[in-house]
Amino acid sequence: MSSNLDLYHGLASTCSKKVRLCLYEKRLTFKSHLLNLQAFEQHSPEYLKLNPNGVVPTLVHNGEPIVESNVIIEYIDDEFPDTPLRPADSLARARMRRWIQFSGVVAYDAVALPTWMKISAPVARKLSDEELAQVLARVPTRERRERWARVARDGIPQDEIEECYTEMDRILAEVDRAISRGPWLAGETYSLADIAMIPFVDRIHNLRPDLCPPGRYSGVADWYRRMKARPAFAPAFDFKDDPRVEGLPNI
Amino acid sequence: MSSNLDLYHGLASTCSKKVRLCLYEKRLTFKSHLLNLQAFEQHSPEYLKLNPNGVVPTLVHNGEPIVESNVIIEYIDDEFPDTPLRPADSLARARMRRWIQFSGVVAYDAVALPTWMKISAPVARKLSDEELAQVLARVPTRERRERWARVARDGIPQDEIEECYTEMDRILAEVDRAISRGPWLAGETYSLADIAMIPFVDRIHNLRPDLCPPGRYSGVADWYRRMKARPAFAPAFDFKDDPRVEGLPNI
Repeated sequence: MSSNLDLYHGLASTCSKKVRLCLYEKRLTFKSHLLNLQAFEQHSPEYLKLNPNGVVPTLVHNGEPIVESNVIIEYIDDEFPDTPLRPADSLARARMRRWIQFSGVVAYDAVALPTWMKISAPVARKLSDEELAQVLARVPTRERRERWARVARDGIPQDEIEECYTEMDRILAEVDRAISRGPWLAGETYSLADIAMIPFVDRIHNLRPDLCPPGRYSGVADWYRRMKARPAFAPAFDFKDDPRVEGLPNI
Repeated sequence: MSSNLDLYHGLASTCSKKVRLCLYEKRLTFKSHLLNLQAFEQHSPEYLKLNPNGVVPTLVHNGEPIVESNVIIEYIDDEFPDTPLRPADSLARARMRRWIQFSGVVAYDAVALPTWMKISAPVARKLSDEELAQVLARVPTRERRERWARVARDGIPQDEIEECYTEMDRILAEVDRAISRGPWLAGETYSLADIAMIPFVDRIHNLRPDLCPPGRYSGVADWYRRMKARPAFAPAFDFKDDPRVEGLPNI
């Protein structure tokens, strides 16, 4: 199926994984534009024309840029209704949208700093003060500018990281509770809720495998296994379909 | 139309106004359960059964609670499709959803603290240390617990309030830009985007009228005037249909 879709994305980015998984579930082909986030390509003038906040992903469909991963995945389901990824029932849709919102606020906030400490801080710490000043001058949003400044110079107190870990554990507990009523996050139907949350649960497993030993959160473990078994998972999470994957970090 | 809808809400609450406006636009009748947020009724054990985060609003439809105002308004449009409040076109829907998300994150954060300083701080400051400890013990989320503690004891630095004001001005500028391409926030169609954003623009006008003098942000002024002229506006914003409105603050 030709769909005239261009995806600007990051390899390790949880929000990019969310959108890739949605596209692969729908069997949509897209042209990949993988950005090197550690080389700050998301702050280039050309990319800022598509996404003024300088963040990934951006989906361009028939020349129109769509930003914010949660908005993008609902757009994809509106525009490509084959293989629907939203339940037909309004109440299940409300549950789905609550998980989508949760993924973008609570789950994102819990994994963001630990992820930056792992991937971005080692790169940013190597910048000279002058280079760092140049990088920061190009970051369009204050929040992101402050985060780059902090990870570049190690200004993140340990208790702030510990708060993220506490949140990660709470997130696993909430997913586990939902799956016990499931089998999917929004209920009977595999949906955008599962697509929105899996990159964060995957990331938590990666950053803190000790939070999810065998036997703990067994609902999460079952769900994670079923998600990994879906044909869309591998191409989305272990993305290879762009020559630029070589040398880019993925976790 | 009988619809078996119960709304638990706050009079001044921006997120409650969002949902009331949506219900009145659809001409849906609902049973009002107005909570006195300054008497901390949102933390009562009965209400926490409906909304474990102890925040308003909660819509109960046929006995099923739905929480989070952005989720509620999409639920209402899914369940009651007469007078649709979402554009038919996917791209306009994406624009609409971006504004809905923006309202819940950026706009909410900009007005929340100044609103609390105006309405809740004067009440919370009158609590003795023991009473405050009792109130805080019942707040279910850490974020809200910290906010009550800070407004109760004046622990909010002026520069944090100033940041909110800067954000308010940026929000007016963004709305103005969108309306200049409008006439509605998502484009040609009046939608949930307008419903989601108007409580915040109304609140900014209330808290900082000097930010929007005549002639500045004229697109916002036109849009605000057209919103106020809609029959749904007055019952939603100057809500009277509950005996409990007497003595509750509204701004």
